[in-house]
Amino acid sequence: MERCREHVRPALVEAVARLHPWTGEMAAYALGWAGPDGRPEPGGSEGKGVRQALALLGAEAVGADAAEAVPAAVAVELVHVFSLLHDDVMDADALRRGRPAVWKAYGTGPAVLAGDALHARAVGILAETPGPHAGAAVRRLCGTLDDLVSGQAEDLRFEDRPWHGPGAVTPAQYRTMAEHKTGALLGCALALGALLGGAPERTVTALDRAGRHLGLAFQAVDDILGMWGDPQLTGKPVHADPRRGKKTYPLLVALSGGGETARELVALLSAPRSLDDEGAARVAALVADAGGRAATRDEARRHLDAARRALRDTPLEPTAARRLDALFTHVLDRTR
Amino acid sequence: MERCREHVRPALVEAVARLHPWTGEMAAYALGWAGPDGRPEPGGSEGKGVRQALALLGAEAVGADAAEAVPAAVAVELVHVFSLLHDDVMDADALRRGRPAVWKAYGTGPAVLAGDALHARAVGILAETPGPHAGAAVRRLCGTLDDLVSGQAEDLRFEDRPWHGPGAVTPAQYRTMAEHKTGALLGCALALGALLGGAPERTVTALDRAGRHLGLAFQAVDDILGMWGDPQLTGKPVHADPRRGKKTYPLLVALSGGGETARELVALLSAPRSLDDEGAARVAALVADAGGRAATRDEARRHLDAARRALRDTPLEPTAARRLDALFTHVLDRTR
Repeated sequence: MERCREHVRPALVEAVARLHPWTGEMAAYALGWAGPDGRPEPGGSEGKGVRQALALLGAEAVGADAAEAVPAAVAVELVHVFSLLHDDVMDADALRRGRPAVWKAYGTGPAVLAGDALHARAVGILAETPGPHAGAAVRRLCGTLDDLVSGQAEDLRFEDRPWHGPGAVTPAQYRTMAEHKTGALLGCALALGALLGGAPERTVTALDRAGRHLGLAFQAVDDILGMWGDPQLTGKPVHADPRRGKKTYPLLVALSGGGETARELVALLSAPRSLDDEGAARVAALVADAGGRAATRDEARRHLDAARRALRDTPLEPTAARRLDALFTHVLDRTR
Repeated sequence: MERCREHVRPALVEAVARLHPWTGEMAAYALGWAGPDGRPEPGGSEGKGVRQALALLGAEAVGADAAEAVPAAVAVELVHVFSLLHDDVMDADALRRGRPAVWKAYGTGPAVLAGDALHARAVGILAETPGPHAGAAVRRLCGTLDDLVSGQAEDLRFEDRPWHGPGAVTPAQYRTMAEHKTGALLGCALALGALLGGAPERTVTALDRAGRHLGLAFQAVDDILGMWGDPQLTGKPVHADPRRGKKTYPLLVALSGGGETARELVALLSAPRSLDDEGAARVAALVADAGGRAATRDEARRHLDAARRALRDTPLEPTAARRLDALFTHVLDRTR
């Protein structure tokens, strides 16, 4: 991922430099390149660059040079940062990568504007890609942007749904949301890399599917960490998700089991105030006892397997395919 | 404009129907089709549809059928509504077309999300346009989206600039902001209509220029109404702009004149609290006395003339060109 970040950086820097200086400053902060004062903050809180790496490996996997996929890598990275900026506003999340979120550091309005700037530039960069594939690439990215918005809409709407009864969120509905919100962009990264690398439609679709499954596995791991993760490693408070009353996969599985456990969970989660330490720990223990943790680990494994199978069933350049497989494992390694 | 709205409506309805139902509901509210409960509100507070009309007339002006420009009309209308939704969040404007703004009716987060949905779909619709012009159209729209963000960034940054001295906003800087924020999308509407109608690059550029000048004239009229408009006609409080401490063209012209008037204006505007009725009326009177109103009327006329000249200097289909000229006059008629 380090190698991919180095490869993409000049184009990413150029893309940010083309923004209005103020939105560019916020973008540099969000990307972890600068502090909230606009001063360089090298090695600050840069993301891992999973999406960039997927785009470059997508091109290499179809026998093209990684350079072909650089516009795709820049576009998916900008879309990722745009969605983080706006999601943090919508979810009122004050922290991002251990630092104040952009809306906390610069204000809500400016954070919305910086997100808009990144959204527009992401599409612009792909639209300006030389060669015959720009049109198909833009159409694919637009479909992904629709998916991201749908996923965020579904996630926000889950908040108003009851914990149990006929209106409750089902694990299947949660999976659809996660595919839109997390899977679509990972799939798009791989697919765009392959597309700009000149791959046939069938290969592009297979890589999109692999990335979507990777995203679902990633989200399952995230849900495990949000419920039982070590605060030292996650940078979030212990039992962060139940504290926020977030409807995640392990919780929904435990609730769908019904019985006494589900009743106690509903009682704990329906308390008008946020859970205290003891209450949050009790929720986590009940969900684990009801099999929510094991089911989520299975969900992660199942989607990782499906992602690998999608790679294996597609004729790909062997070295890049091995690297992709290793990247998939690495991304999921956070489970252990 | 009525005729154009009827022509575009089925495609616009279809575009909104493709959104996630929740963002679609907010879009229908923003478009004036429905109340905040999602129920149809026919003839509610629909916009005039200037941008849609410009797109269709852009195609007819280059001898094409208006139908060719429908994707352009839908795209610019969606971009317009997207920018209103986000601008109202950033500017904390609670009213839009006499009704609560989307963020007031649905919440800030949902309004941001609905704007994102419209932004993404606008580009998507243009990218899916059949025929050979989709790529060029998307690139042009992306440039316009960059301009819109720059214009909004400049406008927001003006708030922190001093009323006088070396850091004060100049009338020329204001004009650049207005071209980005208002002119770019009007120019884009005309240009995209012509582009999808198969016009050569030179004609597309000339129509873009005409639309940009129209936008600058429109903004000048808006500034006059914001300072001296009849609240019965504008739907805004009397002297709305000076009350909000907004740096508009007439005010900047008056301030740039210096002297005793500028000093009194700065004293009035630098008061820590918002102006009362008397103070706002005094600002409006001082600006008029200092020639700010006349200069802004000249600015509007100059840009309307430039817009007309750009039309006249381009070989266009005569009927459509006449209609465009009439539309320009109509849009500006609010001056009198």
